[in-house]
Amino acid sequence: MRKVKYSVANTLDGFIARVDGSVDWLLMDGTDYGMSKFFKSIDALLLGRKTYEFALTQGHGMKSSKGMSCYVFSRTLKPSTSAGVEIISESAGEFVRRLKLQAGKDIWLMGGGELAASLLAEGVVDEIELNIHPVLLGSGIQLFPELGKQLDLKLTDWKAHQNGCLQLSYQVKN
Amino acid sequence: MRKVKYSVANTLDGFIARVDGSVDWLLMDGTDYGMSKFFKSIDALLLGRKTYEFALTQGHGMKSSKGMSCYVFSRTLKPSTSAGVEIISESAGEFVRRLKLQAGKDIWLMGGGELAASLLAEGVVDEIELNIHPVLLGSGIQLFPELGKQLDLKLTDWKAHQNGCLQLSYQVKN
Repeated sequence: MRKVKYSVANTLDGFIARVDGSVDWLLMDGTDYGMSKFFKSIDALLLGRKTYEFALTQGHGMKSSKGMSCYVFSRTLKPSTSAGVEIISESAGEFVRRLKLQAGKDIWLMGGGELAASLLAEGVVDEIELNIHPVLLGSGIQLFPELGKQLDLKLTDWKAHQNGCLQLSYQVKN
Repeated sequence: MRKVKYSVANTLDGFIARVDGSVDWLLMDGTDYGMSKFFKSIDALLLGRKTYEFALTQGHGMKSSKGMSCYVFSRTLKPSTSAGVEIISESAGEFVRRLKLQAGKDIWLMGGGELAASLLAEGVVDEIELNIHPVLLGSGIQLFPELGKQLDLKLTDWKAHQNGCLQLSYQVKN
């Protein structure tokens, strides 16, 4: 079955972006975070509405290029499949549960935190991959908004980079 | 100068205790987290009032045993130095700044999160040492309540244990 991977860069104090959505604190210094290998393992993206709208303001088309499916979860946007993006208004948990049963590569849960918390609580997230940056932002958009339940994890991989970023992989014991 | 170390065990979602203060999720399975070496490096403890009162309910006397000084920060408790514990009502930042200038070993900032956030924001914390446990608690007492400012860090050490705990050391670039 396809796996859902919540894979994001975050700060040590658990933020994935500043309050205004910006990620200028990301260390893009040529360090190989293994993204090209990761992209080969996936063929679908899951985004919350706010993350999607922020991406649009940044000029990212979020088109389904190279056979990549893009699903945006929203209760306010009109359901559609235009522009290579499918707007999903039904329960995210039920949709993702069905999606995992379809044939395909793994599924990237890009965020944001609210969608991640919802899908973690629904028990459909299989792996959590963090790239912890060596910074305390002090405020921002949360990596893990309160789930309201406990989930046990298994640390499966870790790597410390020269620039102080720490990549961790966990398996979710659903 | 003596260093202040914010050294705690936490969950991957950034909690240091459940909402009721309990830490039953801590993995006390005989793994050597290096605590005996750590205890030899310190001779003073800093605690917030809530952490202190929780410790008291757990039967911990918090006495200044073995030459260990214990400082509890509170605006509501009456200042005193009884029972081996000094209750500090003045600004925590100013008190700790003076304490660091006195002769002695390093200083353990035990928590809780509110005191840590206050001292981090004041620029008097030198090191952050986390023992990230492989669990999402879903709710609890925060490791890093919002600081309201950015602090850059330097990753100085890391160790992954067999039980999935990950110990990280950061230097705070104040």
